[in-house]
Amino acid sequence: MKTNRLNNIISMLKENGVSQMLISDPASIFYLTGKMIDPGERFFALFIKENGDNKLFVNSLFTVPEDLGVEKIWFSDEDDPCEIVAKYIDSGKTLGVDKNLPARFLLRLMELKSASDYKNTSVCVDTVRACKDSEEIALMREASRVNDEAMRELKTRIRAGMIERELASQLKDIYASMGAYGYSFDPLVGFGKCAAIGHYEAGNNILCEGDCILIDMGCIKDGYCSDMTRTFFYKNVSYEHKKVYETVLKAQKAAEDMIKPGVRFCDIDKTARDIIEQAGYGDKFTHRLGHSIGIECHEFGDVSSANDNIVKEGMIFSIEPGIYIEGDVGVRIEDLVLVTHDGVEILNHYSKELEIIY
Amino acid sequence: MKTNRLNNIISMLKENGVSQMLISDPASIFYLTGKMIDPGERFFALFIKENGDNKLFVNSLFTVPEDLGVEKIWFSDEDDPCEIVAKYIDSGKTLGVDKNLPARFLLRLMELKSASDYKNTSVCVDTVRACKDSEEIALMREASRVNDEAMRELKTRIRAGMIERELASQLKDIYASMGAYGYSFDPLVGFGKCAAIGHYEAGNNILCEGDCILIDMGCIKDGYCSDMTRTFFYKNVSYEHKKVYETVLKAQKAAEDMIKPGVRFCDIDKTARDIIEQAGYGDKFTHRLGHSIGIECHEFGDVSSANDNIVKEGMIFSIEPGIYIEGDVGVRIEDLVLVTHDGVEILNHYSKELEIIY
Repeated sequence: MKTNRLNNIISMLKENGVSQMLISDPASIFYLTGKMIDPGERFFALFIKENGDNKLFVNSLFTVPEDLGVEKIWFSDEDDPCEIVAKYIDSGKTLGVDKNLPARFLLRLMELKSASDYKNTSVCVDTVRACKDSEEIALMREASRVNDEAMRELKTRIRAGMIERELASQLKDIYASMGAYGYSFDPLVGFGKCAAIGHYEAGNNILCEGDCILIDMGCIKDGYCSDMTRTFFYKNVSYEHKKVYETVLKAQKAAEDMIKPGVRFCDIDKTARDIIEQAGYGDKFTHRLGHSIGIECHEFGDVSSANDNIVKEGMIFSIEPGIYIEGDVGVRIEDLVLVTHDGVEILNHYSKELEIIY
Repeated sequence: MKTNRLNNIISMLKENGVSQMLISDPASIFYLTGKMIDPGERFFALFIKENGDNKLFVNSLFTVPEDLGVEKIWFSDEDDPCEIVAKYIDSGKTLGVDKNLPARFLLRLMELKSASDYKNTSVCVDTVRACKDSEEIALMREASRVNDEAMRELKTRIRAGMIERELASQLKDIYASMGAYGYSFDPLVGFGKCAAIGHYEAGNNILCEGDCILIDMGCIKDGYCSDMTRTFFYKNVSYEHKKVYETVLKAQKAAEDMIKPGVRFCDIDKTARDIIEQAGYGDKFTHRLGHSIGIECHEFGDVSSANDNIVKEGMIFSIEPGIYIEGDVGVRIEDLVLVTHDGVEILNHYSKELEIIY
């Protein structure tokens, strides 16, 4: 068990008047134990208590190392896991539960009257997870280093007449050759007008001269995610497309430059948005500026007009403004950034200058 | 809206004394509306009522066709979706909810006192979904036809000295070339002793003479899943491995042969298990015999000793016995089968005879 992380969560629970919590989010259990299990439809939870009497409830179908530093309570597919868990819960007190605990478990715990009250206390876990510690920062730097290197390699694979899917499908092996065995999300590759389509993945669109090449990609390395976008142009770039690119880049850099502890997320979003608006593309920047990232690609806390929280040392999130002109072009530039003691560290080092590929 | 499917669910809810249900499982919403949306962390639900006053609650970030045949209630990221949903729920009555409804929504609905009581009524939806209708059967046949064809193609890509990952990584493009744009699960490719490891995906193990080649693969075609396993041998097969193979095949065929409406799932499992036990490999068959499949790769109802329900016309599930000898070999043979009016239709047609690849 990662004691510091656990103690921080217990403190926040206390502040919220809760002395026991059932954590069922596999990413949060990984955060606390170092062991990632995807339980599918099965029950898997870490029960934490103010008095330190923590338990990990595991189905015997899964393999868990001996030395996790927490007592394991085993059960099988024949058991009702909620009945077993209920024995450990202080039924006279509130039980904190995870935001994603499925109804089939929550309703069963209620039926068994396992606690006096049930409260979604995920915010306590998520707030602690938002500020990465030094071990996590090292892993996040490494995942982004691999992502930079993979972008460099993927770029060399771009060929005349290829389709988006062909380029995207090469990425898994590139990552694997660099020791990263998985995507943090399916890569988005859009050529030309397809780059302007929201949530477009990679299709059968053929690369043509003058097309933009938008690549949004990320790997998971040792449990931590990377996420970066670059937009290239193929053989030439029109005056208008260049203007779009320079606008996005200016917005992206301005947002990054202002980041330091104490700045509000919404103000970072506004800085980028204002620049894009002033250039006349306000209605073409159709999404929030960024999202927090770590063990999961999208974590608690987004960089948007709706989030007036301040950024704190150790937070890591994306800065990814974009301009999308329907039927024509889409440009997005994205880095991951780490809030440092007095400023910001950009985790991606792949060049952001306009690059034409021949 | 698929009216027949909806009416069947409403009838089952009525039998369980429930007149309204909030369905949040994206696969069940697809089943009823034909539209698949992965809402991520956002709220997305179909509210069905005995009186036919159904509503689909959709975040305005998602695109939904006009003609779904159900009134849409739109909301945005600034709204509290539960507050909006609560207005439509009859607060004096029980609300059926989906087994996977996340706690953050369920606890909020409870806080708003939106119903008199909350009940996990997923079984009503899942039971109806278990018996496929003619439209679904046609789609399941097609997905398995593609899977047969893809197995044939993938087999031709096996080369001396290749690693498992190299073979597995070719499958996505093979499926795409056949019009299937996605895996129903990440393909499992195991050579030699790695084929004996449970839940092994595809690693860096090199193909050697005498190795078994276990390939467990499935695609999604037009919203429906396929899933098949074949085990080949490379260049030669030992006497012992051949005996293992023939035992698995005998168990697999015997299980398939007995399937017809009225037979119990547990008895199908027992038939296969007995054959493997009699051959002396009882403790090497370490999992259930099969699982239901359809829109999702694993659906409600498994073929195991714990399920004493009877099979019914229209059900589709896998029959996949295996023998796994640690450090040596793993053999599994799997088909999807459809329960017909008076027997069974095997959806996979790729040969199951022992095949040695040169």
